[in-house]
Amino acid sequence: MTATELNPSTIAAEYREEVRHEIERLSPGRRPRIVGLLGQEKGPAATYARYARRGCEAVGIDLDVRLVPPAEVEGAVAAANVDPDVDGIFSYYPLIDRAGDRWLRELVDPRKDVEGLHSFWSRLLYENHRFVDDQRSIRAILPCTPLAILKLLRHAGVGSGDGPAPLEGVTACVINRSELVGRPLAAMLANDGARVHSLDIDGALTFEPAIGRRTHLVQDSGVVRAEALADADVVISAVPAKSFERIRGDEVMSGAVCVDVAEYTNFDDSVRERASVFVPRVGPLTIAMATRNLVRLMIMKQEAGRGTAAG
Amino acid sequence: MTATELNPSTIAAEYREEVRHEIERLSPGRRPRIVGLLGQEKGPAATYARYARRGCEAVGIDLDVRLVPPAEVEGAVAAANVDPDVDGIFSYYPLIDRAGDRWLRELVDPRKDVEGLHSFWSRLLYENHRFVDDQRSIRAILPCTPLAILKLLRHAGVGSGDGPAPLEGVTACVINRSELVGRPLAAMLANDGARVHSLDIDGALTFEPAIGRRTHLVQDSGVVRAEALADADVVISAVPAKSFERIRGDEVMSGAVCVDVAEYTNFDDSVRERASVFVPRVGPLTIAMATRNLVRLMIMKQEAGRGTAAG
Repeated sequence: MTATELNPSTIAAEYREEVRHEIERLSPGRRPRIVGLLGQEKGPAATYARYARRGCEAVGIDLDVRLVPPAEVEGAVAAANVDPDVDGIFSYYPLIDRAGDRWLRELVDPRKDVEGLHSFWSRLLYENHRFVDDQRSIRAILPCTPLAILKLLRHAGVGSGDGPAPLEGVTACVINRSELVGRPLAAMLANDGARVHSLDIDGALTFEPAIGRRTHLVQDSGVVRAEALADADVVISAVPAKSFERIRGDEVMSGAVCVDVAEYTNFDDSVRERASVFVPRVGPLTIAMATRNLVRLMIMKQEAGRGTAAG
Repeated sequence: MTATELNPSTIAAEYREEVRHEIERLSPGRRPRIVGLLGQEKGPAATYARYARRGCEAVGIDLDVRLVPPAEVEGAVAAANVDPDVDGIFSYYPLIDRAGDRWLRELVDPRKDVEGLHSFWSRLLYENHRFVDDQRSIRAILPCTPLAILKLLRHAGVGSGDGPAPLEGVTACVINRSELVGRPLAAMLANDGARVHSLDIDGALTFEPAIGRRTHLVQDSGVVRAEALADADVVISAVPAKSFERIRGDEVMSGAVCVDVAEYTNFDDSVRERASVFVPRVGPLTIAMATRNLVRLMIMKQEAGRGTAAG
């Protein structure tokens, strides 16, 4: 078997179409504005910011990328939070330092958080609340990289696609459990009905599906890499270390769907001989999902103006 | 049986002593400063702010209460967040409107959130993480009213007091499930080992104890008021409505510990004939817990300065 390669840019283009129409409908005559915060003029974050600007422009959003020294980042977020002319905030890490960047996510007004990383949003996600309000009219914001991965899996034909548990019966293996990608992704997959082995240097957890319970259930599990990979219909790896021992074809199930989220590839070429679908990167779809989140935030703001805001 | 009345002011005095010493140790020569945000010059919030100022002054904290019109509240929070001379923020609701006040909690820098209501803190609480950092050196902030209630229960002799599940074997009934009091309280009691029936106009939930699992488990339960009250070693009621049908003595277990958190009493006088301990109000201890939270935040800041910050 040679894996079909799924190009996230092609899929992103479909969403761009939808987002562009929504932006025109929601904000006729005024281009919405996202402030992008960037720490360094060069490097991967700067490259990403450049792609993000293009992705935003393509749908009618102005992305105003600002180069901000570490000591001024929190002030810049505070200013963007209260600026009525700013609709969204997008942070290109690293900006302060590890600890400072962790807090930064909590300082962004959740109503402008196109990345969906504020704890207000992650709490809804972990508790499997899909809506902000009791009337279930305003959808919660999801973190854009895990959301992009879920969309890719749907395009790869994983799961039944519909119903409350579209991933029922699917077993997934997610390598890395960061708060940015691995952990919310494992939770989202399990909320959609999958059983998820989550591997990280801290050990293994299994996210049992949210079927017959309010949300997924996280359990310590002694599952090891070989077992978790051999079991998985879907393998997603997001380890940001060059030293990671790449996943080989003989480790994964024949016909598995494999998604590489890492900057340095986490998969050996032999995986392509064994997988049914291989997704080499997610980035372009992440940006599309951030613009889609902006649309949702704009709808939320409009609803709030009508007095039916989140309680 | 005639219930012993527990006076929260007496217990608050003990904590004040501890907090005063800590403040002197952590900030010699400079009184820490909390900004208090108040929406109206008169009414319960203004009264509470006055008490809070006294409680802060008693431990060496300056509480700078500012009267802020609704349109300026978010700006005031943003300014206090970035002001290096402000150590804490205390909001006296209502400030904007129901929806606006809900968002406001998320806009306060969690590192200045003496009330412990930002989702960063509530996520740790709901997931039963007691520390901010992996090294387990920096304790998480807990919401001050539920925390005050836990301290009152300890003083009332509820539970074994020590070990990882000091409330093992205790059954509690919490009436009201707001994000400010009832829900975090039910979670904290269950995290400490209690089984908690949580009643609210939306229905009944049971919080199963975090024994043998990472955190408590929330389950839909058909439990009705009569059953939940008759079962409970501890009854805590926090319904802010005059129309609430007061809890009568014949509804509670003989020897129960009853805590009234409501502005208008939720308990009929007959409860005092049946309970072993009755706590008529929590307010003074809530303020003491807010000052204690400030101490924890100051320790966290000091640790961060040493480069051992939360990851």
